[in-house]
Amino acid sequence: MSGAPALEKLSSNRVFEGELTKYKFKSAALGGLDAQFNLFMPLNPGGAKVPVLVYLAGVPGEDDDWDFGTGAGFYINATKPEYAKNYNMATHITVELPQVIEAAGIAIDWKRQSIFGHSMGGHGALTLYLSSTTKQYRSASAFAPISNPTKCPWGEKAFKGYLEGGLAEGAKYDATELISKATEPLHILVDYGTGDNFYKQGQLLPENFLKTARDAGYDEFQVRVRSQEGYDHSYYFISTFASDHIHFHANFLKA
Amino acid sequence: MSGAPALEKLSSNRVFEGELTKYKFKSAALGGLDAQFNLFMPLNPGGAKVPVLVYLAGVPGEDDDWDFGTGAGFYINATKPEYAKNYNMATHITVELPQVIEAAGIAIDWKRQSIFGHSMGGHGALTLYLSSTTKQYRSASAFAPISNPTKCPWGEKAFKGYLEGGLAEGAKYDATELISKATEPLHILVDYGTGDNFYKQGQLLPENFLKTARDAGYDEFQVRVRSQEGYDHSYYFISTFASDHIHFHANFLKA
Repeated sequence: MSGAPALEKLSSNRVFEGELTKYKFKSAALGGLDAQFNLFMPLNPGGAKVPVLVYLAGVPGEDDDWDFGTGAGFYINATKPEYAKNYNMATHITVELPQVIEAAGIAIDWKRQSIFGHSMGGHGALTLYLSSTTKQYRSASAFAPISNPTKCPWGEKAFKGYLEGGLAEGAKYDATELISKATEPLHILVDYGTGDNFYKQGQLLPENFLKTARDAGYDEFQVRVRSQEGYDHSYYFISTFASDHIHFHANFLKA
Repeated sequence: MSGAPALEKLSSNRVFEGELTKYKFKSAALGGLDAQFNLFMPLNPGGAKVPVLVYLAGVPGEDDDWDFGTGAGFYINATKPEYAKNYNMATHITVELPQVIEAAGIAIDWKRQSIFGHSMGGHGALTLYLSSTTKQYRSASAFAPISNPTKCPWGEKAFKGYLEGGLAEGAKYDATELISKATEPLHILVDYGTGDNFYKQGQLLPENFLKTARDAGYDEFQVRVRSQEGYDHSYYFISTFASDHIHFHANFLKA
């Protein structure tokens, strides 16, 4: 009897040189709630194991209060009692999803993982990469990430809401705090647009992340943060630079 | 006093190396109804005129009966009295849009136009290209086009509904009928997926178009119709081959 829940296939579409499949399963990390994810697998006649690049969405939630609630767990493990059962998004991404996919017999080489994301998902990608003591991911990248959440309204609200220890506990989920203490080699790429209203409102703070990375001794070959003139927070921005990011990760995943 | 209605800018997003703008105007060809279109313009510091590639969407309509109604004019000019005032989509695309855009001072070189589209929009692209006596478009391409509408349920319904002369009048809006009579050099690319349910149901009939093109003497360098294994009718199919189609048109637009 396997401990991993069964994957239910919801839909499947041929796209580019592979197949995109939508799956559903009962997530223990999310308190038994249904979790969904999409998995792209290349055409792979030999069945050789392939590397995986995890993408974390920005705002998948359905709530009016979109930065707090069902779909918007900030990719942390909640510690406040009222959330601790259903909001363990960090465990969901880093531990549960690989277990569930592996148990389903899908041919992924888990020794070759990288991670990227947009906005809150960019925050998730950077923090899960930087906080992994097992070097789970080979590289991380982000579009318009919330780069210093203990210093912006969205992050303050999330950490005070989800964490018993509030902002102090939130430091371990803050990319800027994490990189200030980092010592190992890093592979990070960040893009943000100067026309992004959330950037202008001080929700993203990529400059804080960049300055702290440089202060910690990381040069542009290890941590690259690019300001993109005129781009906003939307899908148009992501789609413009998505190809760049995938090529960036391929450098490390193919090795 | 200009005859062309004013363009209202609804939104604008930087994307790739340019700007995508959504416009609205009161369309005479559509009986005074509001018409919307998106225009991508490359960053163009010199202001030189650029060629235009027209994309016709498949099902932009909002109706339950999606293949008949507001958004789904089949890219023809209706002749039945109850539709003739509001359904002149052929005129809207080929005459009115260029006039309105030109009047707004947008720097397009109208001598370099090509056209493509998806599903009903693919039908529109092929028929507007093939029926232009002025060679308005240099090339045409289509994703999963309705290729022989006088022989499929969707086309029969549309032509009988919109046209006084029914299917007989519809022949001039049927890509297969049009290519059977064509004599001039052509530049056409068509892709369809073998996993497309509408293809399987006989709504698209690309084989009819291909066979008729060959019978009319067009080889694969002038009319290429590609069967794509396993792809369906969705955006995943379009996105996979969009780059191919744009490069195809660039060959002719850059000349």
